[in-house]
Amino acid sequence: MSNYDLIIQNGTVATAADVFQADIGIKDGKIVQIGQSLSGAARTIDASGKYVLPGGIDSHVHISQPSGDGIEMADDFESGTLSAVFGGNTTIMPFCLQEKGKSLREVLTAYHALAEGQCYTDVSFHLIISDPSDAVLGQELPALVADGYPSLKVFMTYESLRLDDAQILMTLDVARRTGATVMVHCENEDAIRFLIEKHELAGDVAPRAHASTRPVAVEREATHRALTLAEIVDVPIVIVHVSNGEAMEEIARARTRGVKVVGETCPQYLTLTAKDLDGMDWEGAKLVCSPPPRDEDAQKECWRGIETGAFELFSSDHCPFRYDDQHGKLNPKGRTNFRHIPNGIPGVETRLPILFSQGFMAGRIDLPRFVALTSTNHAKTYGLYPQKGTIAVGADADIAIWDPAIERTIRHADLHDGAYYSPYEGIEITGWPTTTIVAGKPVVENGVLVGTKGHGQYRKAAARQINKQSNLTRATS
Amino acid sequence: MSNYDLIIQNGTVATAADVFQADIGIKDGKIVQIGQSLSGAARTIDASGKYVLPGGIDSHVHISQPSGDGIEMADDFESGTLSAVFGGNTTIMPFCLQEKGKSLREVLTAYHALAEGQCYTDVSFHLIISDPSDAVLGQELPALVADGYPSLKVFMTYESLRLDDAQILMTLDVARRTGATVMVHCENEDAIRFLIEKHELAGDVAPRAHASTRPVAVEREATHRALTLAEIVDVPIVIVHVSNGEAMEEIARARTRGVKVVGETCPQYLTLTAKDLDGMDWEGAKLVCSPPPRDEDAQKECWRGIETGAFELFSSDHCPFRYDDQHGKLNPKGRTNFRHIPNGIPGVETRLPILFSQGFMAGRIDLPRFVALTSTNHAKTYGLYPQKGTIAVGADADIAIWDPAIERTIRHADLHDGAYYSPYEGIEITGWPTTTIVAGKPVVENGVLVGTKGHGQYRKAAARQINKQSNLTRATS
Amino acid sequence: MSNYDLIIQNGTVATAADVFQADIGIKDGKIVQIGQSLSGAARTIDASGKYVLPGGIDSHVHISQPSGDGIEMADDFESGTLSAVFGGNTTIMPFCLQEKGKSLREVLTAYHALAEGQCYTDVSFHLIISDPSDAVLGQELPALVADGYPSLKVFMTYESLRLDDAQILMTLDVARRTGATVMVHCENEDAIRFLIEKHELAGDVAPRAHASTRPVAVEREATHRALTLAEIVDVPIVIVHVSNGEAMEEIARARTRGVKVVGETCPQYLTLTAKDLDGMDWEGAKLVCSPPPRDEDAQKECWRGIETGAFELFSSDHCPFRYDDQHGKLNPKGRTNFRHIPNGIPGVETRLPILFSQGFMAGRIDLPRFVALTSTNHAKTYGLYPQKGTIAVGADADIAIWDPAIERTIRHADLHDGAYYSPYEGIEITGWPTTTIVAGKPVVENGVLVGTKGHGQYRKAAARQINKQSNLTRATS
Amino acid sequence: MSNYDLIIQNGTVATAADVFQADIGIKDGKIVQIGQSLSGAARTIDASGKYVLPGGIDSHVHISQPSGDGIEMADDFESGTLSAVFGGNTTIMPFCLQEKGKSLREVLTAYHALAEGQCYTDVSFHLIISDPSDAVLGQELPALVADGYPSLKVFMTYESLRLDDAQILMTLDVARRTGATVMVHCENEDAIRFLIEKHELAGDVAPRAHASTRPVAVEREATHRALTLAEIVDVPIVIVHVSNGEAMEEIARARTRGVKVVGETCPQYLTLTAKDLDGMDWEGAKLVCSPPPRDEDAQKECWRGIETGAFELFSSDHCPFRYDDQHGKLNPKGRTNFRHIPNGIPGVETRLPILFSQGFMAGRIDLPRFVALTSTNHAKTYGLYPQKGTIAVGADADIAIWDPAIERTIRHADLHDGAYYSPYEGIEITGWPTTTIVAGKPVVENGVLVGTKGHGQYRKAAARQINKQSNLTRATS
Repeated sequence: MSNYDLIIQNGTVATAADVFQADIGIKDGKIVQIGQSLSGAARTIDASGKYVLPGGIDSHVHISQPSGDGIEMADDFESGTLSAVFGGNTTIMPFCLQEKGKSLREVLTAYHALAEGQCYTDVSFHLIISDPSDAVLGQELPALVADGYPSLKVFMTYESLRLDDAQILMTLDVARRTGATVMVHCENEDAIRFLIEKHELAGDVAPRAHASTRPVAVEREATHRALTLAEIVDVPIVIVHVSNGEAMEEIARARTRGVKVVGETCPQYLTLTAKDLDGMDWEGAKLVCSPPPRDEDAQKECWRGIETGAFELFSSDHCPFRYDDQHGKLNPKGRTNFRHIPNGIPGVETRLPILFSQGFMAGRIDLPRFVALTSTNHAKTYGLYPQKGTIAVGADADIAIWDPAIERTIRHADLHDGAYYSPYEGIEITGWPTTTIVAGKPVVENGVLVGTKGHGQYRKAAARQINKQSNLTRATS
Repeated sequence: MSNYDLIIQNGTVATAADVFQADIGIKDGKIVQIGQSLSGAARTIDASGKYVLPGGIDSHVHISQPSGDGIEMADDFESGTLSAVFGGNTTIMPFCLQEKGKSLREVLTAYHALAEGQCYTDVSFHLIISDPSDAVLGQELPALVADGYPSLKVFMTYESLRLDDAQILMTLDVARRTGATVMVHCENEDAIRFLIEKHELAGDVAPRAHASTRPVAVEREATHRALTLAEIVDVPIVIVHVSNGEAMEEIARARTRGVKVVGETCPQYLTLTAKDLDGMDWEGAKLVCSPPPRDEDAQKECWRGIETGAFELFSSDHCPFRYDDQHGKLNPKGRTNFRHIPNGIPGVETRLPILFSQGFMAGRIDLPRFVALTSTNHAKTYGLYPQKGTIAVGADADIAIWDPAIERTIRHADLHDGAYYSPYEGIEITGWPTTTIVAGKPVVENGVLVGTKGHGQYRKAAARQINKQSNLTRATS
Repeated sequence: MSNYDLIIQNGTVATAADVFQADIGIKDGKIVQIGQSLSGAARTIDASGKYVLPGGIDSHVHISQPSGDGIEMADDFESGTLSAVFGGNTTIMPFCLQEKGKSLREVLTAYHALAEGQCYTDVSFHLIISDPSDAVLGQELPALVADGYPSLKVFMTYESLRLDDAQILMTLDVARRTGATVMVHCENEDAIRFLIEKHELAGDVAPRAHASTRPVAVEREATHRALTLAEIVDVPIVIVHVSNGEAMEEIARARTRGVKVVGETCPQYLTLTAKDLDGMDWEGAKLVCSPPPRDEDAQKECWRGIETGAFELFSSDHCPFRYDDQHGKLNPKGRTNFRHIPNGIPGVETRLPILFSQGFMAGRIDLPRFVALTSTNHAKTYGLYPQKGTIAVGADADIAIWDPAIERTIRHADLHDGAYYSPYEGIEITGWPTTTIVAGKPVVENGVLVGTKGHGQYRKAAARQINKQSNLTRATS
Repeated sequence: MSNYDLIIQNGTVATAADVFQADIGIKDGKIVQIGQSLSGAARTIDASGKYVLPGGIDSHVHISQPSGDGIEMADDFESGTLSAVFGGNTTIMPFCLQEKGKSLREVLTAYHALAEGQCYTDVSFHLIISDPSDAVLGQELPALVADGYPSLKVFMTYESLRLDDAQILMTLDVARRTGATVMVHCENEDAIRFLIEKHELAGDVAPRAHASTRPVAVEREATHRALTLAEIVDVPIVIVHVSNGEAMEEIARARTRGVKVVGETCPQYLTLTAKDLDGMDWEGAKLVCSPPPRDEDAQKECWRGIETGAFELFSSDHCPFRYDDQHGKLNPKGRTNFRHIPNGIPGVETRLPILFSQGFMAGRIDLPRFVALTSTNHAKTYGLYPQKGTIAVGADADIAIWDPAIERTIRHADLHDGAYYSPYEGIEITGWPTTTIVAGKPVVENGVLVGTKGHGQYRKAAARQINKQSNLTRATS
């Protein structure tokens, strides 16, 4: 009888704190041993010259989400998790969206059905609260937090989703009492609508107007407001997809005031600018996302935030839409006016390689920081830790093996999502995840799919321990 | 034959990133295995119900340092490391002080002689540069950095030690080229002397005047200046013993500008205030240190800095002087005027319990953050990592076992340093390190000294890898 | 035939820039000559040893304003302007409040009727926009701006008055096109209601809860938001009654971003604190105003803002309510719960003496700064300059003569408003206006009423010149 | 007998607060009357369609200053004041420089001799303290402050002039006791020398290196330091020639801490950039000044500082050197290395037209703000007010009449200084001073010199009133 089901040998292992040479012994899907010269396994993978990292957790992914208006998302759980696992991820956290008037249980049931048996990676769900009725906040939500759904997202923008300040306060208050964690999309909807109207009046309706109607001020204001609402309720908060230095500064100032805030940024804010929304024949439409990419100064500021620890989370905000004549990204209305272009771009497969290459290999961050930003802090923020997010005895054997010697150019043709393009087409990458192990079993091995659909499981998350500080790993030079 | 020399069983292990249940297998002074149900050791320590943490590294300790003026330090290597090991430390980093006109090699030889065979913990040395002559900067220092002395401290205060800006720039420039790390004591000496003169003219010479002649503005200014000099040279820098929010703000602003800066604070800035320097019959004199403790707002700001990750290092600045009629703290001159009171207080044994109790047990920080602040970040900042500063396969088996159930009041009578008082007398502590293991051997076990003098070794440190980011572990809520 | 109707002789004259010795020659209600040794007047007032200043303009006064709920304001135009003129004011600017559903013309007609023939000082009106319908914004308002009503106030708080961000943006947009000036009361209503509910649930309903349900964060957030809305529309804005340093900091940061913003503070924020709302038997109720007074640090910050020029306007926010068993301040509901206490306190008569004494006489500001803060900047901000707000050839002869030798304690018994108390009772004042001249005629002379009701006239104001910078007078040391 | 020696009729008069139509009656060199329809003068000047402004005061001018090293300044009192008066100035304040080892009285006697009988405008002197010996600070300086020399300048840069922090503190302390006002040139000399050495080692010695060896960080650091020294001494301070937003931010932060600080900027920081120091054949050398011009962002920030009132003073820092083969700007050594190029450029004649045209006429500032920045605030800061700096009864009749209709391009051929070039060559100006009246007598009239050398007089200045706030006129939109 083997001691282990699998041993990963001779690799350079990293956690959010450490880098060391060791073998990893895995049994029953768990890491049971970390040591020198392990032996006695049914199978051994040699990781000489490679990095053995906790599998990526992408806590900001939109999949199979109802979008209304005849628009269809490009990814379901099958294609979304397939793309994720090829990109070195072992868990993704998509959003279960409450449509107005529906109960959370109802939408969760439907969402579980979509995921069931379809996944290559593990999954856990966030709830999007669009209708915080008394019933929802008073009964449903507290019960669901206890049942494994402790993270909620609220929007300050999008007509169909936005909550007003009173609703956000009530939602935060439930979070304070139950240990739920609230993610906020910070953009001032009224200001955006005001600017859209101005642009429409001026006949400025091409995709680039998407960026000019959502200027930095709109995001900074909503960020300041969300942070103040959390300050008033006295509860931690997550500010998602921060795109620029002014919003970052609001986060920093709030921290100085004592607000507990987790900041997230995404690859689009490091690599794209608003100018990329230009382009003939609606080419820019495919890069429409919110907040929009800004300029090169903002890119530098976001990198600075990654380097200094202003950001704890690096997510994809993967949110691709079908993009053909009938549906989706360029639905018929989208062809006539930027405001009808669905907001969102793909990215679940490219998130990790971009940060690995431009962050770690380029010397901007070290390996523990890479692990913290892409895995550990996600698990800790959203209640999946210590089961997930690290390489430690007792944790799930969710592991990605990276080959730093691979040089590769991002081509959508090589990716596995349901979109037909990548916003990052043509970016040259050094380092790529070649083998991804989920719960102790390789799903991708040496770049080849070896796992099966349905191997990935739904995982409950745990609520925040109230009045107990949990420190995410940040970093400085 | 045993697989291991020692197994630590059943403890809750923590690193700067993780907390997990595991056994630790140690052989030849190194950690060789971390896993479940280890067996086969010559000796086993049961750590049930206890925390198994990387041994503390105190990177800011003054021992056997020449002080001039008939003043004598209270601790030599024997008493200093004995006190350290009882406080859960496995490595301390004292300063080898270059007196003006002396070569660094010369003072190092003498300092090594003082340490040789005297230590209970491992030690590694910083160099204090007081005379950055061409010979020192051009030849000696680069050679010494390569030989294992890559951390330097410079002072902006104290007449006998202060460097001017030109000297600091040249020292930083050597650090940039050689990978040395420069620590800076930031206080504006000219401003202090100006204020001392004013106070003397006004007859205000009691110990409390020590604090009023070194106001926050004096520290903030020097901090801004030091950070600017590092910015100009383009080299990382460590700002030591930050005492207040204004200096912290300078550090935050510098980070935003792209300066690579590591910030340190100390227990005195969390627990004392300038008012503690009051007191009849020169009682305040024993709390004289620089920068001086401030007020309760500053304490809150320093806690905030610990919680938000503005600080990466928590050190003792242990620096006790003999305190009797003939020598030291209250030398004859010190009785007549605060300016003759030597600057420095003891603290190497109480640093960890204070932060463990008031930080971790009180819910302000989690265990990984405690480990980062007290051990891992010190090792990473000063070139002792990965040999020291963590519990990982391949690292030195430097481990402290903490019992969170112990409730104890700090009494100097129970401490082991050479001073005759503690600034922290009477503080109630929850949690205390009961067993300290250095290089795989218990030195203190269940609160009793079991190791021998000379077990602790001098350890070379490695220079910073130039153009390679090394991210310390910070944290936020 | 006299050259002048009136000469004011031998006084020390001050404008917002200058202090000089000169005589002032007045004819037909205007200043026609400023010079040495003027002669040839029907009447001469000797101002030896006195300061001859532009009459105060109080641009933030609530009089005869409908309040609903059986509550009655304590002052009408007669008592309000009488109180004003005794306090050294020559013009006040009350608010004409649009009740929901009413047209602006309609409420203006009614408001003019209340003022007609009743005034001791000149008056000009601001409009409060509570119902920015298309008709109001599209037609009425542009016409009214041209007709002499170019200043608007909007509220971010009070259920019956608050506008949402979309409404504020549209109102600001009209202001941008027409040259109107928008004043904003910045407090986040949703956050206040959230806190009120929490306090009510906890049974904390005494007057002091008024302050704790409107914390600094609530004002800071709304200030940041209002400034951002103005930034998006690209139009100047006035932030009224700033009560603390955090809101001030938002103003400073907005200026750095290029937002054109005028800041106002009031006597209550220099002299009262939230603790003054304590008190047995609802004594605190009479000091309820919004934003509430804060603490001593906030007072210092507001003084700093006055000294450094962060504030350009110093107004009373005079807003007294009847305060007896049947109506007003302590209406029956007000006795049971702080949320029913009407928000507002008297102060039109004491505004100038408080700043003169504690600001100018105490050496915090000089005389030109006093004039700028209390008169000139009000005239310039709200379109009454150069007719009003200065002592210059061609301007209205609106003048207050101040005797710096008078020492007097504020007693409501000596004041002339319709309230039955003063929030400033007992404050000792050095310097008091003894003679107030409106349009060339003394209304109060040597502390005695000599003018008649109806002497004061309504004055149209002029719209801001668009794209033309008008710099208010600020000051620094 | 005429009532007046001169009447200026029908002009639009402006002060730092007001703009009004009035005639000005002048007698015995003083303004005695401001009114409508004045008559009875020996002479009348018609100013219809023109602006009648206080004559410019340029408080930052270097003339006939010893420079050592064979370098010669391009202007003496004759050419300097001639150039000034053609540029609308009626008073200039050059620096009397103390060479090391000399007494202040000694250098003042020599400097007075150079000025005596040579001036077209009035003059008053600042002292440059380069040798603050006990005799200088203890005896000479207090006596000189009382004698009419209450403003001192100290340098933090230039080897021959720089004071260390101790010397600056002692100088500030004398200022605190005597009411003197200290101007500080803020650049960190050690950092500059460090960078110069680096550049020289790299062979980068062209004029552009002047800018790169004096980066913004060098100025920001010294600004923070100077402000801290003033904070410690508790005395007002003037930060001269601020060139960028980072130094401005230090000033703003110091004001928030309560430091009394006056900020100055100059035309070069609005119109030039470091790129202008490029250029073949040492063309860039003629634009070398310290601090150097920065970039377009810094220009915007300086304009912002003018608009928002961060700056109270706008001066020329006129400091031209001879610029031929033998001497001065391009002395032989200057041809080989930027560090030998004398620091300074001409500008006394163009300062006012540049701000009038690009500031007032372009709509960035209004006329009172122009007057404050160019005249009133100089007089108030340096003790010449109320004799100078305004148009008020009793003030010196120092007046410039501006024709806003003139369009003119700056050509050095049209200027009157001793340099042979203008840094502002080619800038198109709208509005020019056509007539300049000093002490009631036209010196330039309709662009023609009508006055005589020696008409301008030396004027004593008065010390600051201690513990008495004097607010300069700042402005905001």
